[in-house]
Amino acid sequence: MYSSPPVLEKLVQEISKLPGIGRKTARRLAFHLISGDREKMENLAQVLMEAKNKLVHCKLCYGFAESEICQICDNPRRDRESLCVVERASDILPFENSGVHKGLYFVLGGVLSPLDGIKPESLHIPELIERLEKENIKELILALGSSPEAESTALYIDRVLLNSPIHRTRLARGIPVGSDLEFIDDVTMLRAFKERVKI
Amino acid sequence: MYSSPPVLEKLVQEISKLPGIGRKTARRLAFHLISGDREKMENLAQVLMEAKNKLVHCKLCYGFAESEICQICDNPRRDRESLCVVERASDILPFENSGVHKGLYFVLGGVLSPLDGIKPESLHIPELIERLEKENIKELILALGSSPEAESTALYIDRVLLNSPIHRTRLARGIPVGSDLEFIDDVTMLRAFKERVKI
Repeated sequence: MYSSPPVLEKLVQEISKLPGIGRKTARRLAFHLISGDREKMENLAQVLMEAKNKLVHCKLCYGFAESEICQICDNPRRDRESLCVVERASDILPFENSGVHKGLYFVLGGVLSPLDGIKPESLHIPELIERLEKENIKELILALGSSPEAESTALYIDRVLLNSPIHRTRLARGIPVGSDLEFIDDVTMLRAFKERVKI
Repeated sequence: MYSSPPVLEKLVQEISKLPGIGRKTARRLAFHLISGDREKMENLAQVLMEAKNKLVHCKLCYGFAESEICQICDNPRRDRESLCVVERASDILPFENSGVHKGLYFVLGGVLSPLDGIKPESLHIPELIERLEKENIKELILALGSSPEAESTALYIDRVLLNSPIHRTRLARGIPVGSDLEFIDDVTMLRAFKERVKI
């Protein structure tokens, strides 16, 4: 049997633990790293350790931050009356990149899934409710996914706030801008047709 | 503009320097790393540093090793009369995995490419010639790729050894085992037909 250097095998193994990276890609990446400028490996190792040690969850929104409160929650120019609820911290990015949302965010940490034992207390739903009671939030944008679990999570939060004056909205569903009608899937077409708007 | 934590942006940037990994994949990998068990990041960082510090080039074959001489060159049971010449250290793997080659290897470090300024001295060709003069090698398997540059590199080495008694061979070209004839490219078909063998 081939005895490739053990540390090289260990590197391949660690890289192949990443999502979507199989053994062959991991090997290619490992060989790339060790074949080129070795400083790159040190940079990558350093930034990994730095991220591991420095990144924490923001105490207000549960997004990623380098201090107790993240830069968005800490920004006095953000609209404190509008709160956008997302599943994961990475979901904040498309909003910020497009610049549509001037308010704050709240990361649930997932969606309800009773079959997998994910109850409201497993997510940050109690913290969300508490925050809504304390702060003067006028609109809650439930920007969750379109899976049945995500939809029922949005519905659950909407029910909890049934008697609250907070305006609850969700993102529009429909045809993505620039896509060909013939390639639209049935469910999207159904939603786009049902929720058609007056020109 | 969005101010994602700087260390997170740095991590995405380092990951996106890897070959075949764009900015979106880098971001997905970064979020995966920071969202899960943080020990994984430390393990990856540690093995990167370990690989950076420990891996060296074998003084005999120029493959990767953790000591001066790699485990293959150091193995007394390998056939010292057969030397397989490859372009890159990663090319050793398919030979070892299939177990076809019982001899030793030699990593050229690339192929000749006069237009890019890659001359015999830029590769390990002088070291190969020197090694062939000193050691009792009977067969030299030129297992280089099938690009024009690789073919002319094999030809160049063959010319240098014109008056040498060393047997020079190259790998057979032909239809890969298990592939459908209808999907074979023209050049492979040409080679496979031209080099057809008696049953």
